[in-house]
Amino acid sequence: MFTNLEHLGLAVHDLEAATALYTTLLGAAPYKTEHVASEAVDTVFFQVGGSKIELLAGTSPDSAITKYLTKKPEGIHHVAFEVDDIRAEMARLRQEGFTLLNEEPKRGADNKLVCFVHPKSAAGVLVELCQSISPTTDHE
Amino acid sequence: MFTNLEHLGLAVHDLEAATALYTTLLGAAPYKTEHVASEAVDTVFFQVGGSKIELLAGTSPDSAITKYLTKKPEGIHHVAFEVDDIRAEMARLRQEGFTLLNEEPKRGADNKLVCFVHPKSAAGVLVELCQSISPTTDHE
Repeated sequence: MFTNLEHLGLAVHDLEAATALYTTLLGAAPYKTEHVASEAVDTVFFQVGGSKIELLAGTSPDSAITKYLTKKPEGIHHVAFEVDDIRAEMARLRQEGFTLLNEEPKRGADNKLVCFVHPKSAAGVLVELCQSISPTTDHE
Repeated sequence: MFTNLEHLGLAVHDLEAATALYTTLLGAAPYKTEHVASEAVDTVFFQVGGSKIELLAGTSPDSAITKYLTKKPEGIHHVAFEVDDIRAEMARLRQEGFTLLNEEPKRGADNKLVCFVHPKSAAGVLVELCQSISPTTDHE
């Protein structure tokens, strides 16, 4: 079951400049920064109501975000939905014919198990499913 | 004050096909369809937790969505944040140097007053501010 629009991921070139910009736009400072070594990204998180804005900047030429920004302009990279059982949702979506980019859930930022759905399966939108590994009390 | 990630707007070519796709993806049927004559768009809304997914298809060549899809692929068109006082937020953002696409709040879908922020002001993201005109009890 999809329970929340958990976050929106934005790909940016200059994380410091984008952080300043979104701090002003949203009228609130980020609550967390996190380096995700496995993805070669630096991330900055803002809370807006029950959802988050995640700024993403690549830290190596091999980062998916760095590669994305060689082909596309800055902007919304993906939308992530919280699900109550990621393995059950992955099985359901596979059965429905969606193309998943991960065979198994992998560890993402912000203490989540995540799986991506191919944008060609979802009308051009890169969809992430995520499930909290433990109660997300660390930032509240 | 930004209080919620109210909705994510997706521009689609075929509203019926996209509605079927998102019904399957999200595992839930839409709660509302609405034609917005002033914008020449048909819209379909899904609820996910405290946020919504809005599918948008143009109904005339002059529709902003129709024009958008002549230049860009299907995908995320805008992100809308609920604010508690849209006029106050518009004044604040103008003062901070953001370019607003509306001089005054205008009537949008789903019983809202809305205003758009130029994507060049927001790292490539078309941002909508919205404020409910009356308690949004019609779809709950």
